[in-house]
Amino acid sequence: MPHEHVETHFMATNLVRDIVAAGLSGAVQNTRLIVVGGLAEIAAGSIAMGLGGYLAARGDAEHYEQEREREYREIKEIPEEEMAEVGRVFQSYGMTPAESTPVVEALSRRPDAWVDFMMRFELGLEEPDPRRALTSAATIAGAYIAGGMIPLSPYILLSSAVHGLAYSAVVTLAALGIFGYLKGRYTGTGPARSAIQTMAIGGVAAAAAFALAKLIS
Amino acid sequence: MPHEHVETHFMATNLVRDIVAAGLSGAVQNTRLIVVGGLAEIAAGSIAMGLGGYLAARGDAEHYEQEREREYREIKEIPEEEMAEVGRVFQSYGMTPAESTPVVEALSRRPDAWVDFMMRFELGLEEPDPRRALTSAATIAGAYIAGGMIPLSPYILLSSAVHGLAYSAVVTLAALGIFGYLKGRYTGTGPARSAIQTMAIGGVAAAAAFALAKLIS
Repeated sequence: MPHEHVETHFMATNLVRDIVAAGLSGAVQNTRLIVVGGLAEIAAGSIAMGLGGYLAARGDAEHYEQEREREYREIKEIPEEEMAEVGRVFQSYGMTPAESTPVVEALSRRPDAWVDFMMRFELGLEEPDPRRALTSAATIAGAYIAGGMIPLSPYILLSSAVHGLAYSAVVTLAALGIFGYLKGRYTGTGPARSAIQTMAIGGVAAAAAFALAKLIS
Repeated sequence: MPHEHVETHFMATNLVRDIVAAGLSGAVQNTRLIVVGGLAEIAAGSIAMGLGGYLAARGDAEHYEQEREREYREIKEIPEEEMAEVGRVFQSYGMTPAESTPVVEALSRRPDAWVDFMMRFELGLEEPDPRRALTSAATIAGAYIAGGMIPLSPYILLSSAVHGLAYSAVVTLAALGIFGYLKGRYTGTGPARSAIQTMAIGGVAAAAAFALAKLIS
């Protein structure tokens, strides 16, 4: 869920930023500088984001492993305290010690289940999928490349920067709408509303950037 | 945790991207275009990311509310099935029905605790903090602005684009190192390792972008 939100933001931001950059480079006679700059940006961004995502996922997996080892140590060295902690989880749901004791004792007889229970219910940690680091890196890098190539493609196909900007704005707004629509369907929050929101974010951000650029240049 | 990782990526990517853009605009005689373009990018990015983060957090809160209402409906309309679901949560931790029954029955006598339990342990959802949407939006926008202003500041202070680029690279690498160090201390993954990783991501991304730009221009 968080990853998906983040990817939407990349897309919207990337699209907006490229339009703004293109708008500002109106002085440039041909599209060469925009295309080279855009491709370099996409390369840098996808590598930084992909590597960052990979290391973050690896870090989460290491953190999970460390916490699990600590829990195994604790149920061996201080079992009474750990049993009391399980009891407190249930008491936070309004149960009396008498009501929770059978479960606490049942858990204390099964070390693996006990540690799994503590990881999830005391620490709130989910076991990370070992393949998640690579998948996450590939997804983020892919989203970054797609989000960057959409607004850049008219400049690659056309040789005029002015025409490029107009086509880029249209293609970008359409892509934001389609992406928002699909995201709304997938997450079940209403496709039309999601499409409008995504286009509005892109529009507001681009308008603010243009206004700022006009104001100071 | 995920937000924090994301903010690191913004920083690294933003820093890298601005260096690359500056390097490519070597033909530009003064720093005016770089500064205006950079500020416009920061405005667009912080608005798109901040608004996107706000709407994502609001969406999470709505989703939580909908699921909670559904759980209240279900424990009223099909209480036996919901009790069986609670039982299955415990059975997945190796408990026998006899061991989990007292807890299941204790929960079934307290509807609020029962729904809270299902939200957390069956659906794996945490109750979102109502102020999180605004905090999250402000944090993301602030991180984006900080991450953008650091590499841009030498161009604002100096009038030569060539000197600007050299200072920008130094300031950026230093900022990545400091940011990685603080992040490593805060998350407990080792400050030195985190500092090196963050600088390496920035360096690899910038090098790849430069190589690509050289190759095609």
